[in-house]
Amino acid sequence: MENFEFHNPTKIIFGKKTEEKIGEILKNDGIKKVLFVYGKESIKKTGLFDKVINLLNQNGIEYILHGGVKSNPVLSHTREGIQKAKENNVDAVLAVGGGSVIDEAKAIAVGAKTDKDIWIYFERGEEIKSALPVYDILTLAATGTEMNGYAVITNEETKEKLSISSIYIYPKVSILNPELTYTVPKEYVAYSAVDITAHSVEWYFTCKVCPNIQNRLVESIVKTIKETTDIILKEPTNYNARAEFMWASTLALNGITRTGVGGGYFPNHMIAHSIGALYDLPHGACLSIVIPAWTKWYLENNKPQFKRFAKEIFNLDDYTKLPQAIKEWFSSIGAPVSLSEVGIKDIDAIADNVMITAKLWNLDKIYTKEVIKEILNLAR
Amino acid sequence: MENFEFHNPTKIIFGKKTEEKIGEILKNDGIKKVLFVYGKESIKKTGLFDKVINLLNQNGIEYILHGGVKSNPVLSHTREGIQKAKENNVDAVLAVGGGSVIDEAKAIAVGAKTDKDIWIYFERGEEIKSALPVYDILTLAATGTEMNGYAVITNEETKEKLSISSIYIYPKVSILNPELTYTVPKEYVAYSAVDITAHSVEWYFTCKVCPNIQNRLVESIVKTIKETTDIILKEPTNYNARAEFMWASTLALNGITRTGVGGGYFPNHMIAHSIGALYDLPHGACLSIVIPAWTKWYLENNKPQFKRFAKEIFNLDDYTKLPQAIKEWFSSIGAPVSLSEVGIKDIDAIADNVMITAKLWNLDKIYTKEVIKEILNLAR
Repeated sequence: MENFEFHNPTKIIFGKKTEEKIGEILKNDGIKKVLFVYGKESIKKTGLFDKVINLLNQNGIEYILHGGVKSNPVLSHTREGIQKAKENNVDAVLAVGGGSVIDEAKAIAVGAKTDKDIWIYFERGEEIKSALPVYDILTLAATGTEMNGYAVITNEETKEKLSISSIYIYPKVSILNPELTYTVPKEYVAYSAVDITAHSVEWYFTCKVCPNIQNRLVESIVKTIKETTDIILKEPTNYNARAEFMWASTLALNGITRTGVGGGYFPNHMIAHSIGALYDLPHGACLSIVIPAWTKWYLENNKPQFKRFAKEIFNLDDYTKLPQAIKEWFSSIGAPVSLSEVGIKDIDAIADNVMITAKLWNLDKIYTKEVIKEILNLAR
Repeated sequence: MENFEFHNPTKIIFGKKTEEKIGEILKNDGIKKVLFVYGKESIKKTGLFDKVINLLNQNGIEYILHGGVKSNPVLSHTREGIQKAKENNVDAVLAVGGGSVIDEAKAIAVGAKTDKDIWIYFERGEEIKSALPVYDILTLAATGTEMNGYAVITNEETKEKLSISSIYIYPKVSILNPELTYTVPKEYVAYSAVDITAHSVEWYFTCKVCPNIQNRLVESIVKTIKETTDIILKEPTNYNARAEFMWASTLALNGITRTGVGGGYFPNHMIAHSIGALYDLPHGACLSIVIPAWTKWYLENNKPQFKRFAKEIFNLDDYTKLPQAIKEWFSSIGAPVSLSEVGIKDIDAIADNVMITAKLWNLDKIYTKEVIKEILNLAR
């Protein structure tokens, strides 16, 4: 095992009706005014918006609304949120929604505490030195942002989709009520299953040391996602399936599966982010196209890991059948598995865009433009 | 899944030579004076004591020594530590040792911030409202105290072994260097393996809801402990085995396996604590005697869990063979599996003692004195 540090200070409040605690939680933490960040109309339709507003009012907490976060949150809207947070002198950011809403809330929380433009933290990796506390009510189990220190934002002008990482952007409290995910449509359940699987396997497939304990944790998560996705697609309001799916999603990217593996990185996300930046396709759909192709390309580079994954997850004795098995699984749950399926032809533009991240992540020696094109060709 | 809250703010620094960071860590946190809590002479023999003293000196941190913690830490020595902490106005408690040393350090940290006698927090469950920060360097992987909010102390006068629980006693930073466990003797490796297994299975066997995700996490930990114990007993300085054993030990009781299982409790610990309180036998040895007997007694009460455990851990299709399989495993690694082996005959006295905890834990309806005697008779 490699040396590691693990520190995850987020408090999770999980279960039925837990969103009803938000007013009290903020009040007990001494919060007087929040920037209330949300996405489109869905939380208004479900009644969650009104519920939260009532709870804020009941607890004497002022709020400034910042709705309209896109599913790939964009820089211009983030900058608007920062402006509002500063002008209104809010004490905290409250995000109600999925991973995109929380990610934008995190970026706003950083931007509100600095005079620098927020994009330099993404573009140049400028060190984050403080942030407003972030609270959230999660409505989509997928990205894991509710219990980690990452946020991803797209600069719609330059078409860059980049990330920040800091101890200051771990949410202070995340409220996870699986019932709030009942209305997530089937295709988004599939994209989420892919995203969670990706978070689990990126390090697992690219690890250098690969301790058995972490391997087993990853396999536990992926088995659970595979099992519960099938149940949810048939019974969208199965509480236990939604709950296990949701908690597995959080565990997949809260750092626990990464401890001590050494040397892992995020190649599938790197490529998928560029597809998302150029085509505004849902993140999970970008990943479901990339993963089978990347796995095929990388297969001989970490054989022991692919062998155990093939056996544990798909009961396959022949690991070379793994890329096809993953492809069939993703396809069976309704996620796209090729670029042609979603009408994307311009591999060259994607490869150019990937190189921006490859350089930032110091992966451009392995992932040259030619290699990226080779992988994308396998995804045609 | 049941509703749950999860909040574990401890920072883990894991790996080779990590103990060398202690001076710097304390200094960066603004700590000027610590109570340095340790056990017997072993950390002096290994050189760790001198190393820590040097690091404290180099970083200008004053220290008050509080050595001599027993392997079942006792109340009188804890009270002495509280006295020293108060008289010297220390900013933090630094524990260097195994679980006992850290547990006593936690109790001292609580006692130093209150005028009340520390025992009322154990005996009456008085709410803990603050504590000094606890830092530790762990030298024995077993109890999990390095990443949780529990501490167990024995009142040697009344022969009660009781626990406290609070968010304030999660260590601020725990340093885990697997190399520091190289000198742990074989019998203590076995006792530790039993203790970690107990932490993993107590809730797993007594759960009401038993979600698959948590079941899989528990099985991941127990498989790892079983596998690495065998390696460590043959090669005490196998770094990877010691490292996986150590991290699995932390994960077993840091709360992650307990989330959402609902209704679980700690019957084996309850009984083992009384044996430990009366006979000063190592905690793991008390557990290795109790677990096979309790499992036999409880077997028909949670059949699905015993079935999957029998299959996953011992590859047994017949779950009724599980108690014997556990017994054989513990025996094979060198842990005692019967009261007679360790010369204990007075079942009645143990049962009387268990009833103190059974009442405190609201388990005295199920675990009457007759039931405890029945279980202990199976452990003869």
